[in-house]
Amino acid sequence: MKIAVLPGDGIGVEIVAEAVKVLRALDLKFEMEEALVGGAAYEAHGHPLPESTLKLAKEADAVLFGAVGDWKYDKLERKLRPEQAILGLRKELGLFANFRPAICYEQLTHASSLKPELVAGLDILIIRELTGDIYFGQPRGRREAPDGAFAGQPEAFDTMRYTRPEIERIAHVAFQAARKRNRKVTSVDKANVLETFQFWKDVVTEVHAQYPDVELEHMYVDNAAMQLVRAPKKFDVIVTGNMFGDILSDEAAMLTGSIGMLPSASLNERKQGLYEPSHGSAPDIAGQGVANPLATILSAAMMLRYSLDQEEAARRIEAAVKDVLAQNLRTADIYSEGTTKVGTKEMGDAVVARLKAQ
Amino acid sequence: MKIAVLPGDGIGVEIVAEAVKVLRALDLKFEMEEALVGGAAYEAHGHPLPESTLKLAKEADAVLFGAVGDWKYDKLERKLRPEQAILGLRKELGLFANFRPAICYEQLTHASSLKPELVAGLDILIIRELTGDIYFGQPRGRREAPDGAFAGQPEAFDTMRYTRPEIERIAHVAFQAARKRNRKVTSVDKANVLETFQFWKDVVTEVHAQYPDVELEHMYVDNAAMQLVRAPKKFDVIVTGNMFGDILSDEAAMLTGSIGMLPSASLNERKQGLYEPSHGSAPDIAGQGVANPLATILSAAMMLRYSLDQEEAARRIEAAVKDVLAQNLRTADIYSEGTTKVGTKEMGDAVVARLKAQ
Ligand SMILES: CC(C)[C@H](C(=O)O)[C@@H](O)C(=O)O
Ligand SMILES: CC(C)[C@H](C(=O)O)[C@@H](O)C(=O)O
Repeated sequence: MKIAVLPGDGIGVEIVAEAVKVLRALDLKFEMEEALVGGAAYEAHGHPLPESTLKLAKEADAVLFGAVGDWKYDKLERKLRPEQAILGLRKELGLFANFRPAICYEQLTHASSLKPELVAGLDILIIRELTGDIYFGQPRGRREAPDGAFAGQPEAFDTMRYTRPEIERIAHVAFQAARKRNRKVTSVDKANVLETFQFWKDVVTEVHAQYPDVELEHMYVDNAAMQLVRAPKKFDVIVTGNMFGDILSDEAAMLTGSIGMLPSASLNERKQGLYEPSHGSAPDIAGQGVANPLATILSAAMMLRYSLDQEEAARRIEAAVKDVLAQNLRTADIYSEGTTKVGTKEMGDAVVARLKAQ
Repeated sequence: MKIAVLPGDGIGVEIVAEAVKVLRALDLKFEMEEALVGGAAYEAHGHPLPESTLKLAKEADAVLFGAVGDWKYDKLERKLRPEQAILGLRKELGLFANFRPAICYEQLTHASSLKPELVAGLDILIIRELTGDIYFGQPRGRREAPDGAFAGQPEAFDTMRYTRPEIERIAHVAFQAARKRNRKVTSVDKANVLETFQFWKDVVTEVHAQYPDVELEHMYVDNAAMQLVRAPKKFDVIVTGNMFGDILSDEAAMLTGSIGMLPSASLNERKQGLYEPSHGSAPDIAGQGVANPLATILSAAMMLRYSLDQEEAARRIEAAVKDVLAQNLRTADIYSEGTTKVGTKEMGDAVVARLKAQ
């Protein structure tokens, strides 16, 4: 089993180091190889996703990813910016299925912006299609507007598109995931306005015929953005396109109040996957040893489960994380009075200690 | 001054009746003419936006709109569905500037999903571009995928596009609105992924040069969806495109906990406008006399301010609405223990009584 380790920028370096430490503590045999990505790779090689990094990622069974990005790259042309690395990896590895759990941990309920009764016990799984939609649709660019009320004016444009097989495969992923949970899928679309999402709705409805044991509900994206605020616990699995998924998964993550705890997985058809925390590179606190490594450690657990077939090891990590929360250890982002504030390394060490004690 | 009154479907009929009552109580001279729109128009004339209704709206100085839509029309082909009326009116009247205030009324703070300290005193203005973007961009439709990994497969597609003048005019609207408020504009984009929104960001930045007294910040849409949950009071004016504005304005409205209180205005370059509550047609409670008419009454106030040049009358209505809240009158959607529950008509009557008492 080979893991490509791509720490990236900002706090990525610190939090991935802790996840690697936890993986090593498992006494499983995997090869781990590290490479640069994002701004760090741009500095060293002039490109956020160098050929060598891409090659490593493709050969590996899984990629453990930290985070990329820093304001100092804002002025670079788009194709050299750190985020292009993550878009490139998704596309090149065909990582079409993004799993973003939004879970509210019992001890952290109070950290949510929402009233505790609305989020206590929250456990949603957002499944976002990750290689299609307006993120990659061609054509796109700048031109003179060819028609419309402003014909002849400078214009920029992008293309939203989904083919039937792309919608079918993500729908299957969602229904199958729902079978392991509460058997309810909410498909989020904008069928009242967009051709793409009328088609999405039609195809999801067709695929649903193969899953009579799963409840399917359709919801417009604007309404979904509202219902997440109003009554998030009404959701089980949400499945949606790349653009809407980007927005709703971040909204849902923030609702929990502890985005520093939330992992993510992006899988292709061969179960190769990229695993990364739901939060970003937080350049403002990078290098200070205060970042929360738990989202990355939990991402490593997802990696063991989905790509490396090590369900037991995954559960051990998840149990160890629950233990350190129960021990009242907290990094700054989830700290509250009466708990013990620890740094990035101490938190990683604490998880390792719990693993050893199991 | 001529007002086109389009009650529409569901609770639209009841709530618009109350707003009309309030307008009549002002002793101003306007002509009001009513017409069918949405599902009601489809039933009567076979189209959600009949020629006669469109003509009336075009001739009027302002349109007072209720709400459209009912599940029973879900199976109709898209162009006959009630929502097409609202899209048609926006396009035909050129209503490019949508104003969606998200205000948290003191007495209703507790109704929010968010902790009171996060929303007390909240007052955001979301300015959504309303006639461009992927809502109206051509080409769109179904076809065989012309290229890509799934070439030859059935596909649906839409086109996101913005021209320079479209972005410029909405940016001016936003900066000018900010001057009357706290002089801060957050422009929401997805410049890291979309050509359209890199252009959006560039043009907004250029227009900003004319407003050195206003602070401009740029934010990605996924981050905006998070920051609205985390710290909504950090925003003053948010300006964004049609699609992102649809999602964020609904999210922000729901954050206040009292969407039944939130008006909206959609204006063109001649200050003609369409005024409607932020909430929908709520077919589940239609005809029961329990809907909250205050969002529509406050929309009528916006109409007086923006299209009919009657600032004083607008303020009188807004003061009257504050008064009825202070009197502890509440419709079911905003009811809480210790207040007096009233129906749609009683709430309208109470506002009229306060107007007379001023
Ligand atoms: C960095 C950016 C391109 C990316 C996205 O929009 O997909 C990020 O927001 C995410 O959700 O992983
Ligand atoms: C009904 C629908 C077409 C409309 C939109 O998406 O604009 C609505 O959601 C709104 O925000 O007014």
